[in-house]
Amino acid sequence: MKNIIETANREGLSRIDNSQPFLVDIRFANEVLPGLHDFVIGHAGPPMDWEQMCGPMRGAILGAIKYEGWAAHDIEAEELAKSGKITFVSNHDLGAVGPMTGIITRSMPLFEVFNETFSNYSYCTINEGLGKVLRFGANDDEVVNRLKWIEVTLAPVLKNVLEMSGPVNLKVIMIQALAMGDEMHQRNIAASLLFARAIMKHLAKVDLLPEDRSRIVAFIMGNEQFFLNLGMAAAKAVMDSAHGIENSTMVTAMSRNGTSFGIRVSGLGDGWFEAPPDLPQGLYFPGFSEEDANLDMGDSAILECMGVGGFAMSSAPAVVRFVGAGTVIDAERYTREMFEISIGKSEKYFIPTLDFEGIPMGIDIRKVVETGILPVINTGIAHKQAGVGQVGAGVVRAPMECFIKALVCFGEKAR
Amino acid sequence: MKNIIETANREGLSRIDNSQPFLVDIRFANEVLPGLHDFVIGHAGPPMDWEQMCGPMRGAILGAIKYEGWAAHDIEAEELAKSGKITFVSNHDLGAVGPMTGIITRSMPLFEVFNETFSNYSYCTINEGLGKVLRFGANDDEVVNRLKWIEVTLAPVLKNVLEMSGPVNLKVIMIQALAMGDEMHQRNIAASLLFARAIMKHLAKVDLLPEDRSRIVAFIMGNEQFFLNLGMAAAKAVMDSAHGIENSTMVTAMSRNGTSFGIRVSGLGDGWFEAPPDLPQGLYFPGFSEEDANLDMGDSAILECMGVGGFAMSSAPAVVRFVGAGTVIDAERYTREMFEISIGKSEKYFIPTLDFEGIPMGIDIRKVVETGILPVINTGIAHKQAGVGQVGAGVVRAPMECFIKALVCFGEKAR
Repeated sequence: MKNIIETANREGLSRIDNSQPFLVDIRFANEVLPGLHDFVIGHAGPPMDWEQMCGPMRGAILGAIKYEGWAAHDIEAEELAKSGKITFVSNHDLGAVGPMTGIITRSMPLFEVFNETFSNYSYCTINEGLGKVLRFGANDDEVVNRLKWIEVTLAPVLKNVLEMSGPVNLKVIMIQALAMGDEMHQRNIAASLLFARAIMKHLAKVDLLPEDRSRIVAFIMGNEQFFLNLGMAAAKAVMDSAHGIENSTMVTAMSRNGTSFGIRVSGLGDGWFEAPPDLPQGLYFPGFSEEDANLDMGDSAILECMGVGGFAMSSAPAVVRFVGAGTVIDAERYTREMFEISIGKSEKYFIPTLDFEGIPMGIDIRKVVETGILPVINTGIAHKQAGVGQVGAGVVRAPMECFIKALVCFGEKAR
Repeated sequence: MKNIIETANREGLSRIDNSQPFLVDIRFANEVLPGLHDFVIGHAGPPMDWEQMCGPMRGAILGAIKYEGWAAHDIEAEELAKSGKITFVSNHDLGAVGPMTGIITRSMPLFEVFNETFSNYSYCTINEGLGKVLRFGANDDEVVNRLKWIEVTLAPVLKNVLEMSGPVNLKVIMIQALAMGDEMHQRNIAASLLFARAIMKHLAKVDLLPEDRSRIVAFIMGNEQFFLNLGMAAAKAVMDSAHGIENSTMVTAMSRNGTSFGIRVSGLGDGWFEAPPDLPQGLYFPGFSEEDANLDMGDSAILECMGVGGFAMSSAPAVVRFVGAGTVIDAERYTREMFEISIGKSEKYFIPTLDFEGIPMGIDIRKVVETGILPVINTGIAHKQAGVGQVGAGVVRAPMECFIKALVCFGEKAR
């Protein structure tokens, strides 16, 4: 049995490493996500109901309801959300991912990523910028108006640009960004600028009003986390290609809805193995502290599943301070630790500061349980109340209980 | 005397570290460089005559003569160059710098950099891109036409953009780029994109034909060495502010004209201490080898004087392979070695991979002679024949003889 598992896991690792995610188009959610009609809302993490939702998740849902015009104001939106008339769906079940609250509704434009090696698609929203944004649970007019601008002005332009540029190779950008101090979860400055480089000369050809053009350029190039959502969509397309391998103990998704942390395992179907999430340990923006923090949240831990984010901490000495994770030596320690719970090392994605060693790739639930080493995730921190937004960034560990539950299920299945 | 020298050198170090270079304008060479009229040509390195010039230097001069319209073709241009009617001037004596051949003539647009702390200006040409370009001695129609396009189309647009953006803080860009794997001499990908980020939203507002806009964006964002010339102008403004400190043994310029390597020392006036340059050791582009290489060339070693380039090798693990300088451990070794010949460490420019240690800053001629450790310079390699262009990139050491000559002069002056 051990050999069978090893073979299955090697296959999974090979699929991750050989996947080739390309950004191919901008599509509206209702065009491409099955069942995302009126009164349906996709969210980060495992499935849950309104009653179970944390503050920022509820805040973002009210914002999305106003954005879609299903209610005119917060009170009406909350009544609707509570009424049972809204269907809540896990993004992963739609083939999509979203950072933090991860809310997706029908009118939102999405990045469409195509994994050329395995011919599968994935989707993610367009990053809204930093601070008071829907993904962190903010929902006032500024937030809703920005979402409308993204839909009405930005999305058609980006679609037009992608027609001119052709598919944008996200793998190449991620490999380059690792050599430029990004870890692709809490630090995406290089990846964002490399993406901008890929599209800006085409954007220059689009006929636009000067103020629209300037706002679009500033929106993309002024946001050091613009690439986060592209990296997530890429990771989703990559990890989905490695899902469903019989006898594989590889984690193909980690995701949190702010109430529950869930993992999926390649050989164990589409169910989630869940446990309560931890509070991230990190640095808070001025005026905020751990008391304001919501529990760990978002689909973004898909990045760690493919070996970037916290797993590639060593490639990003500058992120170590941002997430309050200590010194450069600590960063290397995180990456070295993650090698112990990974199936192998990438032969495509390198960490130059570790003398071009491959990133640790593919979490093995057996190794997590055996070693007691928990996957490390770099994450943003949302205020626990609806409507506030981001209050910091930090590091969090996946809860052991998820891995034990998955391993028990795997053992029962094997018997 | 030793204390007096230490005090003078500390002052020099402080001036380098506290300098604040800003890109403020685009100016034409004949507007701002004294005496750069018709039939005057600025070049890299110490002064020399046509007879002494190497192949690529002569090639670039023929290109510049054609570009200025002083001759119609290569034969006529060479006759003019040999005739004695052309005055050749060292860029440094004009307050300017240029990479490789460093040719500057009256019609060329220059970056104008202002050192806000010490109110001094410096100038450098706009980077032409890679491969077959004037700075590497290429001079055909493609080269000349590109120079014309830079003058006629690009320069006025950049000038307009800088009016809108205001001064661009080059120090902040350089500090950020060190955290993104650049060393600012042979690797400028992050600095170039960070500079693009600073100007692109303003460029978006300029009224331009779509094809011109697209070419300008591609020209700036498609050139990973675009920032090289900005970094050099910044370093020139920085180092000039530390020149002329009585009793200082600090090197304020290292520069090579392809025939001779020269250094200037803060306390020893504007004269050059010269010696024959070495051949860079490095990696060659396919089809070329060491036999094709010209001797070390260019004003760009001004970067190493302020502690970037080869001195900051450790910040750029990816450059180590590009210049054929070994592994990441070797990169750290280069930086550690440079600490031994430097006056101190920067408190402003950090190397994240060395746990945010400051870069080695300010070469002390005494330490070079005492330790026998020669300053390391990352450099491009030009073909030794006129008209070919770049053939590789590598590492070179400054020749000991320059430092011995300077130290002898210093000793004689002190007596």
